Amino acid sequence: MPTNTRTLEYALSVKDLLYAIDLVGTFVFAISGVITSIKRKVDAFGASVIGFVTALGGGTLRDLLIGSTPVGWMTNNHYLIAVGAGVLVAFFMRNKIAGWRRTMFIFDTIGIGLFTILGLEKTLQIGLSPIIALMMGTVSAVFGGVVRDVLVNRIPLIFRKEIYAMACVAGGVVYLLLRHFSEDEYWPIFVSITVVITLRRIAVMRNWSLPVPR
Amino acid sequence: MPTNTRTLEYALSVKDLLYAIDLVGTFVFAISGVITSIKRKVDAFGASVIGFVTALGGGTLRDLLIGSTPVGWMTNNHYLIAVGAGVLVAFFMRNKIAGWRRTMFIFDTIGIGLFTILGLEKTLQIGLSPIIALMMGTVSAVFGGVVRDVLVNRIPLIFRKEIYAMACVAGGVVYLLLRHFSEDEYWPIFVSITVVITLRRIAVMRNWSLPVPR
Amino acid sequence: MPTNTRTLEYALSVKDLLYAIDLVGTFVFAISGVITSIKRKVDAFGASVIGFVTALGGGTLRDLLIGSTPVGWMTNNHYLIAVGAGVLVAFFMRNKIAGWRRTMFIFDTIGIGLFTILGLEKTLQIGLSPIIALMMGTVSAVFGGVVRDVLVNRIPLIFRKEIYAMACVAGGVVYLLLRHFSEDEYWPIFVSITVVITLRRIAVMRNWSLPVPR
Repeated sequence: MPTNTRTLEYALSVKDLLYAIDLVGTFVFAISGVITSIKRKVDAFGASVIGFVTALGGGTLRDLLIGSTPVGWMTNNHYLIAVGAGVLVAFFMRNKIAGWRRTMFIFDTIGIGLFTILGLEKTLQIGLSPIIALMMGTVSAVFGGVVRDVLVNRIPLIFRKEIYAMACVAGGVVYLLLRHFSEDEYWPIFVSITVVITLRRIAVMRNWSLPVPR
Repeated sequence: MPTNTRTLEYALSVKDLLYAIDLVGTFVFAISGVITSIKRKVDAFGASVIGFVTALGGGTLRDLLIGSTPVGWMTNNHYLIAVGAGVLVAFFMRNKIAGWRRTMFIFDTIGIGLFTILGLEKTLQIGLSPIIALMMGTVSAVFGGVVRDVLVNRIPLIFRKEIYAMACVAGGVVYLLLRHFSEDEYWPIFVSITVVITLRRIAVMRNWSLPVPR
Repeated sequence: MPTNTRTLEYALSVKDLLYAIDLVGTFVFAISGVITSIKRKVDAFGASVIGFVTALGGGTLRDLLIGSTPVGWMTNNHYLIAVGAGVLVAFFMRNKIAGWRRTMFIFDTIGIGLFTILGLEKTLQIGLSPIIALMMGTVSAVFGGVVRDVLVNRIPLIFRKEIYAMACVAGGVVYLLLRHFSEDEYWPIFVSITVVITLRRIAVMRNWSLPVPR
C-alpha cells in the first residue's frame, strides 16, 4: 500500500510538473509572438492576436485535424491566462526581455519538446497511427510559428532556417520507441524532451541547416 | 392571451429583423471583399472567392473551433445567395458603389455588431464560457477581413489601423452583462449593437488608434 | 449470376482504377508543390511541407468544413506514401522532371478532375446540397494550391491567371446532371473528368482567362 500511495503521489506530482511546463511554454511562446510582431508595426491588438496564435495555433490545428473540438484551450482557461500573461509581460517589460534571452530560449525549447510529446500522445489516444501522431506532435510544436509568420507576411522561418522541426520529429520517434518498451508513463517523456532540447542546442551551436534544394 | 400572441408576434418580427440584418451584413461584407481584391489585380474568380471569404470566413472559423460542423452556411442557402448578390453588385455596379460609401459603412458597422453578438450567443449555447464566447464573437466579426488580407498578401488591416475589434469586445461585454440581468431576449442585442456602432463611429471620427508597441 | 459477377468485377476494377488515379494525382500534386517551393529558397523541410499541403490541403479543408474528422489521409496511409514518394522524386530526380512536363500536366489535370468529383460525391454522401457539393469539389481540387501560394508569400495563382477552377465547376455541374439521370455509378465520373480535362486543355491552348475587374 505505501508503495502504491507513493507511486500515486509521484504520478500526481509528475503530472503537475508536465502541466506547469506546458503553461510556461505557452507563456514563453506568447512573448516570442508579440516580440516578432513588434518589428512589423502592428498595433497592440494585432500584437496580442499574434502572441495568442503563436502560443496556441499549433495545438488548435492539431485538434481541428484530429476532430477534437471544441479545441483544447476553450475548455481550460489556464492556457488563456498563460497567453494573456505572456502578452502583458511582452508589452510592459520589453526592455528587460532582452536580458532574459537565454532563459527564454531554454523554456522555448522545453516547450517545443513538450508540445511535441503531448500532441503526439493526444493523437495516439484518439486511436490514430504512430506516423500520424508524429506529424501531429510536430504540428503542435511548430505550426503556431507558421501562422505567426503568415500573418506578418513573411515566408515561415521554419521553412527557411530553423531546423527544430527535425528535432521534434527525432524526439517524437524516441518517445514512440520508449513508450513501446517502457512501463513507466513519464520517463519516456523526459528522455524524449531531452533529445529535442539537445538536438536543437547542438543545431544552433553548430549552425546546422537542412539543404536548400537546387 | 392577446398579450402572449402579441409577444410571440413581437419575437417573430424581431427574429426576422435580426435575420435580415445578418443577411444584409453578409451582402455588404461580400461587396467590400470584392472591392479590396480589385485593387490587387485578381481575376473574377479570385475576386468572388475573396468576397465569399470576407463575408463568411469569420463565422466559418468560429464554427470550426467550437466544433459546429458542417459550418453554418452549408445548411442555409440564404447566406450563399447574399454573398452571390454582393459579388454581382460589386462587379456590375462598381461605379455606383462609391456613392453608397456612407450607406455601406453603416451596414458594415451594423453587420460587425450583429455578427459579434450572434457568434457570442452561438458559442454560449454550445456551453462554452463567456470569455470564449466573447473571443468567438469577435472572431465572427473580424476574421473574414483577416483571411481576405492574407489572401491578397498584406498584413491584416485590423492588426495595424482599425480598432473595430475593440468595439466588438466592448459591445460583447455589454451584451453579456445585459443578458445576465435582463429577461427580454432582444433588447440586449440592440443595445450592444448600438454600443459597437457608436464606439466605431467615434473611433473613426476622432481617429482613435491603439498604441503601436515600441 | 454470371452477369452479376461480371458487374461486380467491373465495379471493383473501376473502383481500383479511380483509387489509383487519386493516388497518382496526389503524387503529381506533391511534386508540383515541391517544385514551386524550390524557387522560393525554402529548405528541404519547408519544401516537404509545401509538397504535402499542395497535395492534401484541398481535401483537408473540405473534410474540416463538412465535419468529416479525423481528416481523410489520417486513416489511410496510402495518401501519405503518395506524398512522400512525390517529395522524394522531386528532390532526387528534379533534372529529369523538366522532361516529364507533358506527362505531369496530364496527370495534374486528371487529378484535378478526379479530386473535384470525389470531393463532390463525399459531400453529397454526408447529406449536403448539390451547390455545397459543387463548392467542396472545387475546394478539394484547388485549395491545396492556394495554401501553397500563401505559404510562399504570393497571391494565389488561381486568383490571377489559371482558370482551372472554372473547369472544375463545369465538370462538377456535368457530373451532378449525369448522376441524376444515369444508373451507372462510374461513367458519369469519367465523362465529367473528361470535361474538366478538355476545358483546361482548351483554356491553356487558347490562353483563355477570366476578366480582371476594373
